[in-house]
Amino acid sequence: MEFLSLYSDEYFMQEAYRQAQYAFEEGEIPIGAVVVCNNRIIAKAYNQTEKLNDVTAHAEMLALTAAANYLGNKYLSDCTLYVTVEPCIMCAGASYWAQLKRVVFGTAEPKRGYRKAGNLLHPKTEMASGILAAECAELMASFFARKRN
Amino acid sequence: MEFLSLYSDEYFMQEAYRQAQYAFEEGEIPIGAVVVCNNRIIAKAYNQTEKLNDVTAHAEMLALTAAANYLGNKYLSDCTLYVTVEPCIMCAGASYWAQLKRVVFGTAEPKRGYRKAGNLLHPKTEMASGILAAECAELMASFFARKRN
Repeated sequence: MEFLSLYSDEYFMQEAYRQAQYAFEEGEIPIGAVVVCNNRIIAKAYNQTEKLNDVTAHAEMLALTAAANYLGNKYLSDCTLYVTVEPCIMCAGASYWAQLKRVVFGTAEPKRGYRKAGNLLHPKTEMASGILAAECAELMASFFARKRN
Repeated sequence: MEFLSLYSDEYFMQEAYRQAQYAFEEGEIPIGAVVVCNNRIIAKAYNQTEKLNDVTAHAEMLALTAAANYLGNKYLSDCTLYVTVEPCIMCAGASYWAQLKRVVFGTAEPKRGYRKAGNLLHPKTEMASGILAAECAELMASFFARKRN
């Protein structure tokens, strides 16, 4: 990846991507997330459903919980969630409750992504997509290709 | 409440209701849940979003995590989730991933319930509703009435 300017969506998505790489290395579906508040990363997480044996342990859920813990506030209305793959319905539901300022994701997930069920985000939450999409998608594809072999 | 036969939906919902009462006593939105596997309660939880300062700490989420932990299996395909109020989108999404056998809820929640977004449950998951609905709804109404005063 090229040099990315600080505080850009690409910069923060690269941090989320790094989290996804950790998941990949640990045999987890490679999805990573960070939560950013005032241009500062306040939480990082990667998918741990296998390790924790818990379907709720998606990167986004862990990151939202960690961010709320850091801020001492369960509402994250000044925060942006960066996640490498389009969130699922559960995670979109969680981001609704958190009243996030923005949700930014990398690659779309037409089958399991939340958009299949409509716009589930909070009315106050902005959304952006396609940031480092090719890299995020490629990591997922590598993971499933390796699993099949 | 009248005497309830063992292993009936009403019996297990009464246990979920008891959890909701604990939430009420602690100033939490009074929603309770239990997970039942082979007629045995393997997890109980109540909403703790205030105490844990975490929007993801709904009764259902905590109960699903606890049940997976108990079984050592994140898939709960032999389990029924009893919850006093219709699950939200986040919790319906979690129950999708857990591939629950059944979801049984007490009172409907037209505004925040998952059904507003369609049938978000897993195709293998059966659903039943209206069990002890009046009691479950009354507990919610008492909570919000108390909050307003």
